[in-house]
Amino acid sequence: MSTVNPNPSAAMLVIGDEILSGRTRDANMYYLAGELTKLGVDLKEVRVVSDDKNAIVSAVRALSTAYDHVFTSGGIGPTHDDITADCVAEAFGVSIDVRDDARVLLAAHYAARGAEFNAARMRMARIPDTATLIENPVSIAPGFTVQNVHVMAGVPNIFQAMVASVMPTLTGGSPLLSQTYRIDSPESTVAEPLGDLAARYPDLSMGSYPFTQDGAFGTNIVIRGVSGAQVEAAMIELANLFPRG
Amino acid sequence: MSTVNPNPSAAMLVIGDEILSGRTRDANMYYLAGELTKLGVDLKEVRVVSDDKNAIVSAVRALSTAYDHVFTSGGIGPTHDDITADCVAEAFGVSIDVRDDARVLLAAHYAARGAEFNAARMRMARIPDTATLIENPVSIAPGFTVQNVHVMAGVPNIFQAMVASVMPTLTGGSPLLSQTYRIDSPESTVAEPLGDLAARYPDLSMGSYPFTQDGAFGTNIVIRGVSGAQVEAAMIELANLFPRG
Repeated sequence: MSTVNPNPSAAMLVIGDEILSGRTRDANMYYLAGELTKLGVDLKEVRVVSDDKNAIVSAVRALSTAYDHVFTSGGIGPTHDDITADCVAEAFGVSIDVRDDARVLLAAHYAARGAEFNAARMRMARIPDTATLIENPVSIAPGFTVQNVHVMAGVPNIFQAMVASVMPTLTGGSPLLSQTYRIDSPESTVAEPLGDLAARYPDLSMGSYPFTQDGAFGTNIVIRGVSGAQVEAAMIELANLFPRG
Repeated sequence: MSTVNPNPSAAMLVIGDEILSGRTRDANMYYLAGELTKLGVDLKEVRVVSDDKNAIVSAVRALSTAYDHVFTSGGIGPTHDDITADCVAEAFGVSIDVRDDARVLLAAHYAARGAEFNAARMRMARIPDTATLIENPVSIAPGFTVQNVHVMAGVPNIFQAMVASVMPTLTGGSPLLSQTYRIDSPESTVAEPLGDLAARYPDLSMGSYPFTQDGAFGTNIVIRGVSGAQVEAAMIELANLFPRG
């Protein structure tokens, strides 16, 4: 479908063996997709890669070149398999070490709780040069932004808190408006008239999502676009083509 | 983490605007990841792209070159936005048209239900030259395999049925064994001894997954490997390091 679209583009990079092995079901992609759509930033691609240096470095480079923003999830904790920060630094050719601003945040956090600020925890203060910190109100250890790459934790409630910290810094576009129309007929009956309708509205995207309910086939049609007037006009045509029973 | 691994590799390509817009939460990645792990095929990468010809063609080419198997999900229905079959044909430079074997399956299916075999439904019989069909016991319209790319529907129950059709045709490796140990301490306490342990078992992967429960921090450690004896030995060491309270 061709959609004239001036919105900023984005990609997401999910990092973690636990997703690829089927141990954990990713929750962050769905969350980020919804938040970006609300802001008018178009999520164009998601990649999931394992905790492997080459895989992470080359994905960061490819996605940061191709899209306006990249959001990563996972691999910034205190353990040996948390290599995301070092990989992002390498992808951009910047150095990385424990940085004072992050160290001070973490030291205060552990001091307040009477907990030891050990070497593993110190690892979470490793931040690439030139990066700006992303606030983490949940567990303090910050994310960071290098150029157009926003590096965030994988634990869903921390990921969501970091997304909330990043979103106000982004310039959104026109939020994509969306309306759904339910048709109690199988997709294969709907396809031809829908194709004709889509051809007459090249600036809208029309998706067709089949379902079965109580043994009967049905189709949800979702019409999306940045112009509310166009979405509305197309919905009226669609409703006329498939009047409710 | 370094893991000596002779298993076949795989990638997944999820095709669909509805995932990237946050309208639909993908269910197929989690399912396929679990099935491949059971079979001893290592899922190394997942990409999600929109219903866009260039995005699909280039992802199919990149993934089919880099991995032993590629599994796609979505975009093979009857509507105008279902362009996966044509894109896969283009990626491999093979022609595509309505093919007799698929047409016969669909014609019989619709005839048996007294339904019209219209042009939209005929679209689902478009199969690239040289492809072998993947059986779809749910709604008949087949998936297909071209070279190392297995093309399947996005609707979860149909996707799962097609995966069940494909799996017996694959040669698996050594299934990855996995054991989990729960430690009632935060990840940052566990990190250093775990890193030492991981260094002594280079053929195993050790992942650390923090959680919070009732306001307390805990960590699940997952040890994975193809050698049950090694996984067992490492688990015993881990249990000695962090005895249960």
